[in-house]
Amino acid sequence: MQIKIINPNTTAAFTERSLALGRAVAAQGTTILAGQPAQGTPSVECHVEEAVATLGIVEQVLEGERLGVDGYVIACFGDTGIDAAREAAAGPVVGMTEAALYAAAMIAPVFSIVTLPRRTRVFAERVVLQAGLERRCRRVRAIDVDVLECEDETAAVYDAFVAEARAAIREDGAEAIILGCAGLSPLVAPLRETLGVPVIEGVSVAVKMVEGLVTLGLATSKIGGLAYPPTKVWTGPAAGFAFGKNGR
Amino acid sequence: MQIKIINPNTTAAFTERSLALGRAVAAQGTTILAGQPAQGTPSVECHVEEAVATLGIVEQVLEGERLGVDGYVIACFGDTGIDAAREAAAGPVVGMTEAALYAAAMIAPVFSIVTLPRRTRVFAERVVLQAGLERRCRRVRAIDVDVLECEDETAAVYDAFVAEARAAIREDGAEAIILGCAGLSPLVAPLRETLGVPVIEGVSVAVKMVEGLVTLGLATSKIGGLAYPPTKVWTGPAAGFAFGKNGR
Amino acid sequence: MQIKIINPNTTAAFTERSLALGRAVAAQGTTILAGQPAQGTPSVECHVEEAVATLGIVEQVLEGERLGVDGYVIACFGDTGIDAAREAAAGPVVGMTEAALYAAAMIAPVFSIVTLPRRTRVFAERVVLQAGLERRCRRVRAIDVDVLECEDETAAVYDAFVAEARAAIREDGAEAIILGCAGLSPLVAPLRETLGVPVIEGVSVAVKMVEGLVTLGLATSKIGGLAYPPTKVWTGPAAGFAFGKNGR
Amino acid sequence: MQIKIINPNTTAAFTERSLALGRAVAAQGTTILAGQPAQGTPSVECHVEEAVATLGIVEQVLEGERLGVDGYVIACFGDTGIDAAREAAAGPVVGMTEAALYAAAMIAPVFSIVTLPRRTRVFAERVVLQAGLERRCRRVRAIDVDVLECEDETAAVYDAFVAEARAAIREDGAEAIILGCAGLSPLVAPLRETLGVPVIEGVSVAVKMVEGLVTLGLATSKIGGLAYPPTKVWTGPAAGFAFGKNGR
Amino acid sequence: MQIKIINPNTTAAFTERSLALGRAVAAQGTTILAGQPAQGTPSVECHVEEAVATLGIVEQVLEGERLGVDGYVIACFGDTGIDAAREAAAGPVVGMTEAALYAAAMIAPVFSIVTLPRRTRVFAERVVLQAGLERRCRRVRAIDVDVLECEDETAAVYDAFVAEARAAIREDGAEAIILGCAGLSPLVAPLRETLGVPVIEGVSVAVKMVEGLVTLGLATSKIGGLAYPPTKVWTGPAAGFAFGKNGR
Amino acid sequence: MQIKIINPNTTAAFTERSLALGRAVAAQGTTILAGQPAQGTPSVECHVEEAVATLGIVEQVLEGERLGVDGYVIACFGDTGIDAAREAAAGPVVGMTEAALYAAAMIAPVFSIVTLPRRTRVFAERVVLQAGLERRCRRVRAIDVDVLECEDETAAVYDAFVAEARAAIREDGAEAIILGCAGLSPLVAPLRETLGVPVIEGVSVAVKMVEGLVTLGLATSKIGGLAYPPTKVWTGPAAGFAFGKNGR
Repeated sequence: MQIKIINPNTTAAFTERSLALGRAVAAQGTTILAGQPAQGTPSVECHVEEAVATLGIVEQVLEGERLGVDGYVIACFGDTGIDAAREAAAGPVVGMTEAALYAAAMIAPVFSIVTLPRRTRVFAERVVLQAGLERRCRRVRAIDVDVLECEDETAAVYDAFVAEARAAIREDGAEAIILGCAGLSPLVAPLRETLGVPVIEGVSVAVKMVEGLVTLGLATSKIGGLAYPPTKVWTGPAAGFAFGKNGR
Repeated sequence: MQIKIINPNTTAAFTERSLALGRAVAAQGTTILAGQPAQGTPSVECHVEEAVATLGIVEQVLEGERLGVDGYVIACFGDTGIDAAREAAAGPVVGMTEAALYAAAMIAPVFSIVTLPRRTRVFAERVVLQAGLERRCRRVRAIDVDVLECEDETAAVYDAFVAEARAAIREDGAEAIILGCAGLSPLVAPLRETLGVPVIEGVSVAVKMVEGLVTLGLATSKIGGLAYPPTKVWTGPAAGFAFGKNGR
Repeated sequence: MQIKIINPNTTAAFTERSLALGRAVAAQGTTILAGQPAQGTPSVECHVEEAVATLGIVEQVLEGERLGVDGYVIACFGDTGIDAAREAAAGPVVGMTEAALYAAAMIAPVFSIVTLPRRTRVFAERVVLQAGLERRCRRVRAIDVDVLECEDETAAVYDAFVAEARAAIREDGAEAIILGCAGLSPLVAPLRETLGVPVIEGVSVAVKMVEGLVTLGLATSKIGGLAYPPTKVWTGPAAGFAFGKNGR
Repeated sequence: MQIKIINPNTTAAFTERSLALGRAVAAQGTTILAGQPAQGTPSVECHVEEAVATLGIVEQVLEGERLGVDGYVIACFGDTGIDAAREAAAGPVVGMTEAALYAAAMIAPVFSIVTLPRRTRVFAERVVLQAGLERRCRRVRAIDVDVLECEDETAAVYDAFVAEARAAIREDGAEAIILGCAGLSPLVAPLRETLGVPVIEGVSVAVKMVEGLVTLGLATSKIGGLAYPPTKVWTGPAAGFAFGKNGR
Repeated sequence: MQIKIINPNTTAAFTERSLALGRAVAAQGTTILAGQPAQGTPSVECHVEEAVATLGIVEQVLEGERLGVDGYVIACFGDTGIDAAREAAAGPVVGMTEAALYAAAMIAPVFSIVTLPRRTRVFAERVVLQAGLERRCRRVRAIDVDVLECEDETAAVYDAFVAEARAAIREDGAEAIILGCAGLSPLVAPLRETLGVPVIEGVSVAVKMVEGLVTLGLATSKIGGLAYPPTKVWTGPAAGFAFGKNGR
Repeated sequence: MQIKIINPNTTAAFTERSLALGRAVAAQGTTILAGQPAQGTPSVECHVEEAVATLGIVEQVLEGERLGVDGYVIACFGDTGIDAAREAAAGPVVGMTEAALYAAAMIAPVFSIVTLPRRTRVFAERVVLQAGLERRCRRVRAIDVDVLECEDETAAVYDAFVAEARAAIREDGAEAIILGCAGLSPLVAPLRETLGVPVIEGVSVAVKMVEGLVTLGLATSKIGGLAYPPTKVWTGPAAGFAFGKNGR
């Protein structure tokens, strides 16, 4: 089985980090691939960047389809472009945010998210509502750090994260913490030790979930809102797109 | 005051139709402009096309900002790309779907949407949830017609629409009907006559709402989730984007 | 087009203030009228006063109907008596609270209300729930000031309001603030300057929204829960009421 | 203990019917009184009539307060004027609709309401939402009968009611039925026999609930949204109102 | 009429306390019984203990059925095993938590719960959601006290309770407080005096509510999710269970 | 890694069926065990049986803990006793119902459940609400078949299931179907072929999800509502229970 992790931004360090994460948890027989858009944005922190990144995600999926990839992971908190990816792919697509939320719901009655930077809380809240967990995810918190600051020196954000997570435990009653950025994975182990509660990193959860769906023969339903895109004459960035039975 | 209606698809007939709608209802002193992406998709019926269209919408907003446009309308059912447009624009941006929903909420206790084609119900349901009207919008119904079929011969969909709207009144208890496609505006007058309930066309409502917001000095809050995009080095389709204080 | 602003209380200073607000924002061709009940309560701060005021509102609407008024605004936070007004009127009726909420929803992801006095929070929360915005209106806050204290010296409440609004921004994450009292309109401009976020005054928003609905030919649906009252023999304060086809 | 049932309309037959209902279920030591407004509307079927009736209800409460009444029941489906009554009364006030809903929630997982006439469904839905039972009250159904038709010949509506209740059981999965009109109480016994599910009549439930609250020393909280009305100079129908510590 | 209060734990002091509570509020003609499981857990503070207690509750109900008991009260915060009890009983069953919530909803717009120990908040939140009052029950608070600490010296928890209840009033805006433990009933009178808001003890409310349901001839619907258990060959602790028409 | 599937009923054929399901999907290196209570109920179709089964589940978990089991699956639609199992286990516990719901949410915008027998719909609806998917799980449908009828001849229920699933697709707009009974797994492959939409069987999904959680080092949070049970002297069926640090 081949699983492809799609990093929606153009920063290779994050792609490598996600690839390593995926390989560390994959089952025997699962090959983990990772990709990033050739062009786009170095990080996804606003809605305009989400739109830019989504086109790159679709291209990454189409490339994966040509290679026979069985399932995909969207490695961006907020699950940027996930429904477009689902339309483009034959196999299942899982977002790191929804995966983290469902994992949290299976191990804790209530929990909180700590994400970054502040303006991206709207992305996390969008996924929480779509996943239906707004009663159990008590709060979406954020620290004042930009995504790219996580690239080389994630330790630099460690103290801010610990402070916010402790506030979540104390004030929100959170019994688990979701790490709200794909770039923060190196913090998982020390955070679990320090906080004494489960700390959930979404990319690795999503890898296991999509691996499970592929094993079970489950893929996106193609009878309705996530069917392959209809065939039309597109121009501009999408001019070469070819989907589904038409495109393969 | 200048209001620009953005048609997210590349079909000029729909742009013209929206422009005419807007001009018919604008107050004295309001200039209505309309635009469409130079490249993209002839209609927006799936999530991939939404991503394509959103880039075009951002370009249309940036062009509007250079001309000093005061407010924008997104003329696509589902309010494609609206948050990206809000980030890009200094003035307010109103979607035809949210505008129709709020108008419906001010004139009827409960109501339904009739949209097209079937697969786009997920877009309408997304806006209903975001607008919070899932208790009052009793159902999102659809007829089996593609958007482009509405281009020349909207009368052809009239009978299907009437049948579905009557089912909404009878089965859902709907007391008003929202017309779920910008291309259907010529149907409004005969539908009101035939159905005996308010029939709400979103583009024209959005024009009046954004005109009101501009008059009142209200524009998108720029302190959080809809602030101008951060300045970064983008590549590919977004390479030339320049926003907010940086770009103007 | 004639729009009538109905002040549900008997304090003429508030009627004048709303009339001035409406005239300042009306489009060319729109005549703004304002009225208040001949008898009733000097301010609406409890449910008993709401009932008293509603009868006065219905009388004001009936008077407006005789004059051919096209649409109405309810200028009381909590939208006192709005459904009774909708039953009585042929044209649309918009409440200042719902109008402010919908405007907020179009310009900010999340927002809070600051109203007065404390006991009236239940009115604001009723409208938030009816409008469906309980997920996005993060909190209904109040300051300890009575409505009539706003009559002459609104500056007196300014500091309390600023403190509460700042708490909303800091603690609730509010990105816009709704001003929860028709009497506070003189505070809008200084508050926007001081707070750095949109501050929304509902009477003026409602004027623009009802003006838009009238322009679009949209009025309260008369097939169900808001149809004209049935014809009966009423006694007491309602003895002279005559509605709809019967009354005009 | 004295419990007063307030019939918000001016039709004496309904007052008598509610009084009989209350007396049939009261505990030893409980005196049941009943009253109706001196002036107002013969039935409450729209929002204008609710406003008229609420003034009469407040007068009835004030009269009860002078007599030392311990608790009140609002005998109108929709719980017309209940918050105004709560402000006016020292003791607890229970509405027939909320009482029926809570009773239903204690004896059935899911249930439906059958009310009349159709336009009053909005009243029932308002109480369902306020009571929080919108997930468990599967549907508010209505039959095409006016309230006053129930006065003399309730048997005339029996067949329509049975048909609608059976649809509720079959289509909604309802496991209990709430009778949505105070005038329908004579139907309870035959309906239970015919339908084979619990049939809940709200006035009698409300009598037992308010009797329980009085026994337990529980009354409306007076620290917030339901405190006694503030003392002001009212004119018109409310001129003589005197509440709480001021009025007693 | 015979009402049986079931204490789900094996601590006789709590059974006695509930019996005294029930007798103090019962109407003339109502006989209050109380029972506890012969074996089980001395207090119910986790889900495992809930399962243990539920078997004991069913045995207590079956014993009650043999004696012709008319209705039951579950005297455990969290309403442990209530649906199993409802299946087993011919008459109505009311939980102390749901009863307290409905009483609160009839006397205060918003309220909070103060329960103990902390880990049982999940039980209270389960009932709040099932009862639909998650919008009006502003928060489930807890103090750090074990149930058995309430057995002899409830005064010992008084100060902690007062502090938490005051925080509920100040921070949550609670206008009434629900006492979240059957063992705390001796605190009701002093708490009402100290806090100045209604303080609601659920066992006594449940006694009055089930007494009311019995008076009204209302019992658990037996057509669906709460019908008598189907007849099967059970082994182990349930081997002797016999229900409904089969068992009586 | 050892995963134990717990069949809460005493019917060995279902245990065998779940074991085979688990083994068919487990990753290399994962050992699947299965167990059932020594005593209890042959199927779980009511709340009383759930209580009986939960004690057996706890015993099964405790036996697993002694063997060093890493994670557990509850193989009963409705996820009977799952929170008690979570308290008892050191590792993660996943229910077949929640697993199926989360899988559905990752592959379809909206979906429906088809379960059996009718009275168990309340169990499915409880999990849907707890999982937060009540907006996306459009309806819980049931067919009129008892669990034990699925033991030998699941083909016998095939036609009834197909008819109900087709109604879900046509009337609810469901784009995937959840198979609501562990006994129905042999139907998955023919149903997918016949219906043309994803058909989700929960036991196998739960096996993959708990396998993933174990791989990721994620287990139930032990700081709050799901901590190990407190140590007490239990009597009766629970007399021998020993949990957590105390018991291992």
